[in-house]
Amino acid sequence: MTQPLVKAFVFDVFGTVVDWRGGIAREAASFLNAYGQANASPEAFADAWRSRYAPAMQKVRSGERPFVRLDVLHRENLDDVLPEFGIDKDAVPTHVLDELNLAWHRLDPWPDSVKGLARLKTRYIIAPLSNGNIKLMVDMAKHGGLPWDAILGAETAQAYKPTPQAYLRAVDALMLKPEEVCMAAAHNSDLVAARACGLKTAFIARPYEHGAGQTTDLKAESDWDFIVNDLNELADAAGA
Amino acid sequence: MTQPLVKAFVFDVFGTVVDWRGGIAREAASFLNAYGQANASPEAFADAWRSRYAPAMQKVRSGERPFVRLDVLHRENLDDVLPEFGIDKDAVPTHVLDELNLAWHRLDPWPDSVKGLARLKTRYIIAPLSNGNIKLMVDMAKHGGLPWDAILGAETAQAYKPTPQAYLRAVDALMLKPEEVCMAAAHNSDLVAARACGLKTAFIARPYEHGAGQTTDLKAESDWDFIVNDLNELADAAGA
Repeated sequence: MTQPLVKAFVFDVFGTVVDWRGGIAREAASFLNAYGQANASPEAFADAWRSRYAPAMQKVRSGERPFVRLDVLHRENLDDVLPEFGIDKDAVPTHVLDELNLAWHRLDPWPDSVKGLARLKTRYIIAPLSNGNIKLMVDMAKHGGLPWDAILGAETAQAYKPTPQAYLRAVDALMLKPEEVCMAAAHNSDLVAARACGLKTAFIARPYEHGAGQTTDLKAESDWDFIVNDLNELADAAGA
Repeated sequence: MTQPLVKAFVFDVFGTVVDWRGGIAREAASFLNAYGQANASPEAFADAWRSRYAPAMQKVRSGERPFVRLDVLHRENLDDVLPEFGIDKDAVPTHVLDELNLAWHRLDPWPDSVKGLARLKTRYIIAPLSNGNIKLMVDMAKHGGLPWDAILGAETAQAYKPTPQAYLRAVDALMLKPEEVCMAAAHNSDLVAARACGLKTAFIARPYEHGAGQTTDLKAESDWDFIVNDLNELADAAGA
């Protein structure tokens, strides 16, 4: 084992553990069809919804608005994306939009995720360190069988990644030193921020997170402590 | 099923899910023997340590001191209890006391707990709503195989039961209404406080929590929504 000090692995979730694009597109397809936009691309809808994610969190990170759960931001962003797809939000019952918003709670794990996490769990504490809220993470874990030891992340920290507090409050909750916690993510920027806080880092390549034409995060862009292709490879590398 | 609205069961842990007295006594026995007090009763040591629990938390609840984790209170209380057993704390290496303090992280579940929780988990969200801190709950769950969906309780709420915020912040994290969450505990007082916050209530009889001579909480003292003898009975009653 190459990292004897690591006692916990904490995970980015959207894109790293679950396939958000495929899951959102699946539910968007039914929705677009029901509201007269059957010719629209469900994947484009997923991309458009997701594209509002970072700017919405930035308003919290900058202090422009107080911390609110990701469910709230997702719901606002859904309203915002509808006109782009020719849908008048006032023509859709609120409960339909609320239900579509819960598609983020029902995302499927990548094929290796459950087995890889279960293996890591035998030797390490494993927890999400996601910007998703607690209930979102709990529902997703029950939907997909993700065997987390605890739910950490933005809501417990009251801060969105890559704000340092998001990482450091998770480390504190685990009563560990930063170097005893390894951040696992498919996004180099997440690992840059985690490393700056003193955490160990694991890059999981997810070259289809954004579909076949993905251009970002195709490979590790630094000398991360672990560089692997999936969570079983991470378990192998971590001796679990 | 008698409670169709309940979506989550949250649990008191010390005494309700795990046997704190037996676990502490087991580790205290070795400690007392090592420090020249082999004739002292390990159960009496456990009782003396635990007796300082409520007064220590009261200082936080009253605002006399800011919130600190239960691990901190346990450690202070350990120092406090040693003279009562003829042990000079300065004669014991700090690391030995720190390690003994972690006995609370290694408590064993009651025989029915793991199976009962696993059954409940198939139909409900299950989480501790304990005064124990996150790391304590995580370590205990890994030690005993408790299959929690999330770790809620005092540290996430920054408030100790029976302060209302301890219950209400768990309900809020689950994005449920109070009546959709059922507090399960072996202590009537915990259920009184939970009911006052609008939660459903489940009394689990644990007549040996304090040993064979137990005089408190031998039975339900109100018309709790569920009144059962163990967690399998709770799973039966809840249709899980």
